[in-house]
Amino acid sequence: MSSTATASNTTAPTQILQVGSHSYAYRRFGNGPGLPLLSLQHFTGTLDNWDPAVSDPLASGREVILFDNAGIGRSSGEVPETVVGMAAHVMAFLDGLHLDRCDVLGFSLGGMIAQQMAKDRPSIVRRMILVGTAPRGGEDIMHLEKPSLAQHLQDPRNRGYAVLQKIFFAPTATPPSGPNVAKAQTAAFREWEHFSGERFADVKGLRHPTLVVQGFHDEMIPVRNSYWLAENLPNAALLAYPDAGHGSLFQYPESFTRHAAAFLSSDSESAVF
Amino acid sequence: MSSTATASNTTAPTQILQVGSHSYAYRRFGNGPGLPLLSLQHFTGTLDNWDPAVSDPLASGREVILFDNAGIGRSSGEVPETVVGMAAHVMAFLDGLHLDRCDVLGFSLGGMIAQQMAKDRPSIVRRMILVGTAPRGGEDIMHLEKPSLAQHLQDPRNRGYAVLQKIFFAPTATPPSGPNVAKAQTAAFREWEHFSGERFADVKGLRHPTLVVQGFHDEMIPVRNSYWLAENLPNAALLAYPDAGHGSLFQYPESFTRHAAAFLSSDSESAVF
Repeated sequence: MSSTATASNTTAPTQILQVGSHSYAYRRFGNGPGLPLLSLQHFTGTLDNWDPAVSDPLASGREVILFDNAGIGRSSGEVPETVVGMAAHVMAFLDGLHLDRCDVLGFSLGGMIAQQMAKDRPSIVRRMILVGTAPRGGEDIMHLEKPSLAQHLQDPRNRGYAVLQKIFFAPTATPPSGPNVAKAQTAAFREWEHFSGERFADVKGLRHPTLVVQGFHDEMIPVRNSYWLAENLPNAALLAYPDAGHGSLFQYPESFTRHAAAFLSSDSESAVF
Repeated sequence: MSSTATASNTTAPTQILQVGSHSYAYRRFGNGPGLPLLSLQHFTGTLDNWDPAVSDPLASGREVILFDNAGIGRSSGEVPETVVGMAAHVMAFLDGLHLDRCDVLGFSLGGMIAQQMAKDRPSIVRRMILVGTAPRGGEDIMHLEKPSLAQHLQDPRNRGYAVLQKIFFAPTATPPSGPNVAKAQTAAFREWEHFSGERFADVKGLRHPTLVVQGFHDEMIPVRNSYWLAENLPNAALLAYPDAGHGSLFQYPESFTRHAAAFLSSDSESAVF
């Protein structure tokens, strides 16, 4: 890769960070004045599922760090069955990188992990972009068995989890995640739907400036979850896209990255951008 | 006003357009490559209620036309008791100006009139920005008698409709609208809450690229109305603001006008901006 080439997910090497007994796979590319943007991926997704149309424009103003959580892609270990467990791995990874503060882009499951990180260690997160996700206590989160989704999963033209690529508009998945990944992550979704005490209390306590992004026609995590998320976060703006499903950020990469960059470039204490 | 002065609502002269037996008050200022932006005001509001912090930046890329509907401010006639009647006056005014196509910024009641115009004469509207408003069949629209609003109206420190200025964050109201204006416009709100047949069918038929804007804490027209509006319009993006009530566009003028200008500058058939 020449020094003048654009920083890209397609050319950045996959690196392995050893932290204790765990080895975490990641890519790190781009530069600029912003804090590094930690990018946390969706259900069964790996480093390769980050569309360069999204990751690369963001890398022109900051470093982008893509991360495979424990048990995903080239990272070692078992996939935790709770979002709390997944967030603990992310924080161990950041500690291993000696990064004590970053911005976070969390997509779907990744958005839940971002919220959990912000709750468990508020100082590690400056600004969050939460796309196609839900607060703890949300509803109808990734119920792949429901008819509107099962029709795709059971379509013989779509083999295994390759159907998710179709739903997400993401073109590649190497190495693919196996059924054990899906099983553990689905358990985490079910746990995330539960809450005790006041509903949405967790997000009410997060002061981080947050941009919530969602497609109006998301069958995997319906848009009302983003309404609840943005209404209950004390400092969140909401951007919702027409004619879009779960993968709105990949469907409208030019719009999404422009708004995301404007949001991330702000040093205001407000989420308004 | 010198030729180098910035076009502004504070310096533009109030003009009167005679159309048949009606005389309509308006202001027209600014220039640029865009279509004229017709701006339709909120409950009891007049030309003077348009905060220059919103109207003036938008006038740097297009003409802005501010309009007093029939019976409001310096316009003659009676205030219609339906949104349909108000929209008919706007279209008569545009016909009088020989404008057969424009963009529309409709705030609150003005957003309902914009929707009605788009339904009754689709070709006259290119793009719409609908702020703090509701589709036909929306709920809890400007019920000033409810406790959360009545506490402001009944506060002896707030005299008459001057309280609305406080709620709207708009600084001036000259000439003020009298109780007859409020009465007729309130009747129009009640009529707008009614629907026959399929709910939200009217907006489902509008293909115009639309930007819906709302504050999460709007007590006058709750944010769920903007959810319904943007979900049922086939081609609408939604931007919702934290820590904001009904007057979100006046609360965050820098953000609002930047997003509005980006949206209006697009010549795409999609609302995505």
